[in-house]
Amino acid sequence: MNTHSMKQVTIVCEAYAREPLLTLLSEAGAHGWTLFEVEGFGHQGRRDADIPEYANIQVQVVLQPSAADTLLERLQSELFPKFAMIAYESDVRVIRAQKF
Amino acid sequence: MNTHSMKQVTIVCEAYAREPLLTLLSEAGAHGWTLFEVEGFGHQGRRDADIPEYANIQVQVVLQPSAADTLLERLQSELFPKFAMIAYESDVRVIRAQKF
Amino acid sequence: MNTHSMKQVTIVCEAYAREPLLTLLSEAGAHGWTLFEVEGFGHQGRRDADIPEYANIQVQVVLQPSAADTLLERLQSELFPKFAMIAYESDVRVIRAQKF
Repeated sequence: MNTHSMKQVTIVCEAYAREPLLTLLSEAGAHGWTLFEVEGFGHQGRRDADIPEYANIQVQVVLQPSAADTLLERLQSELFPKFAMIAYESDVRVIRAQKF
Repeated sequence: MNTHSMKQVTIVCEAYAREPLLTLLSEAGAHGWTLFEVEGFGHQGRRDADIPEYANIQVQVVLQPSAADTLLERLQSELFPKFAMIAYESDVRVIRAQKF
Repeated sequence: MNTHSMKQVTIVCEAYAREPLLTLLSEAGAHGWTLFEVEGFGHQGRRDADIPEYANIQVQVVLQPSAADTLLERLQSELFPKFAMIAYESDVRVIRAQKF
């Protein structure tokens, strides 16, 4: 089985961060992403959530490790200050195909 | 890049387990969760699935490792006996932000 | 906590690959899967994406490692030539229950 070690980055954010996020994904070299609406809650605790229920999106993108680093750094410096957003990465093994 | 090792717990269950599940997430110290409707099938094999098609939800939550342990133990002891449900965890690295 | 190391396989594909995909999951021994619609983009780069926006599905399935290998091999040989599709696997720990 011909697989390739890559990173999956998951971003949950307010729906109105959609366009700057997709622009950033493209600039970071994302080869593929999926986006779907979720009901969610950004963080709970002693103060109200920044992310209201029912108006969030979840985006999952698979990238080369170096591109994932770039994406995470740019998310943190450029989009985190502006939008309610969480982001995390995990390890995945992708089936190689001629087209990928 | 300032990241933090945490656990993602994924739960797939009947939609009517929603309220007890969200209560349990909150009690386990979940900092964020997303919920979306899925079409799914709980398990296949020699007997019929407990989870019917079209009436399921998938919940993903990111937690500190100790909170993930607590959540999994309580899911198993309190909700698994009552609802058709599967749950699993994986390792994730979360971008740290002031708000998290 | 009684957990079990398994694989999560994620497949993103054109919606019209749905039936052959679900047949293959069943044949590969999948004990559970979820399916939901996503907006997505298969790959970006120097040529147009094979996967148009708004007509894709994401399927997540948890399997024994050997069943995951079988599934990935059959996806690559049987469905990748016919459909716009990406697939990747990751490690998960599943709560054991009598029913699983």
